[in-house]
Amino acid sequence: MALGKDYASQECSLARALEIVGERWTLLVIRDALYGVRRYNDFLVHLGIPRAVLATRLQALTTAGVLEKRRYQESPPRHEYVVTEHGRGLWPAVRALGAWGREIPGSLPMREFTHAVCGTPLGVVGECAKCGGPVELEDVEMLPGEGLDRHPADPVSRALLEPRRLLQPVVTEPV
Amino acid sequence: MALGKDYASQECSLARALEIVGERWTLLVIRDALYGVRRYNDFLVHLGIPRAVLATRLQALTTAGVLEKRRYQESPPRHEYVVTEHGRGLWPAVRALGAWGREIPGSLPMREFTHAVCGTPLGVVGECAKCGGPVELEDVEMLPGEGLDRHPADPVSRALLEPRRLLQPVVTEPV
Repeated sequence: MALGKDYASQECSLARALEIVGERWTLLVIRDALYGVRRYNDFLVHLGIPRAVLATRLQALTTAGVLEKRRYQESPPRHEYVVTEHGRGLWPAVRALGAWGREIPGSLPMREFTHAVCGTPLGVVGECAKCGGPVELEDVEMLPGEGLDRHPADPVSRALLEPRRLLQPVVTEPV
Repeated sequence: MALGKDYASQECSLARALEIVGERWTLLVIRDALYGVRRYNDFLVHLGIPRAVLATRLQALTTAGVLEKRRYQESPPRHEYVVTEHGRGLWPAVRALGAWGREIPGSLPMREFTHAVCGTPLGVVGECAKCGGPVELEDVEMLPGEGLDRHPADPVSRALLEPRRLLQPVVTEPV
């Protein structure tokens, strides 16, 4: 059952969004980028997907303006992928889907998100009930939840074990 | 590049959610169900996808507890698919992705969502800025936006041209 990549018949902004973020693994690439993952190899070891798939996803997200490809080293040339302002706008959707996923029977909380300013757990769409309204991404504290593996094999998962802010660049040892 | 249907390596509630709603067209089926579409033929004409794909999606969403299959006629037996309480929990994600899709250059608003009680346009995750907090789905008014085709070919799109509430059953003429 081959299905096309677009939703041309669907006059709907949800369909437009899904044309960009609806491919398999794409929202997990965006999740990682929001968590602060920037480098190709870090996405690769954390997601465990084929190189060609990851390269295609990063290219498409760059073209769509969700990620920006930046050179961070001249010789040899090395690039990283940084979430753009447009890409930041996907946090409420990522948060809402994640919060819904937690309601699925049998799932344990893997990460907790709080408003760093007051320590209040975020609501289902990333808002702070105590302070009111949405929370800036830089003010979202990410903490390991009870379901998380405390001894992961890959360096990105290890870096994400520590409490940290969203978008704070993940730093791993060079391979 | 065949990719499996699960995200077994990903310890994450977003991945759990995507295992249920991440297949192609699935979120558009859920969107339609939230708009009040209930019958197989109505999903079919509105989405324009192959019958086998729609049947697979409806079955999977029923198994996952997002939709409930209800018999509405005994002879001949006829069923409809109604959003469950668990399925209603996907509205913030659908709304957030749709709101993000509207920010994509070149897209026109297809539908407007307001809080029926006060007429305030909903925020990006379905909240009412005037009344504060989330809006009950039954209190969300859905209005055609300027980008919407005013003379659609299918009866479901025609039914959705009129202002209506979310979840209000779509009634079309029998085929």
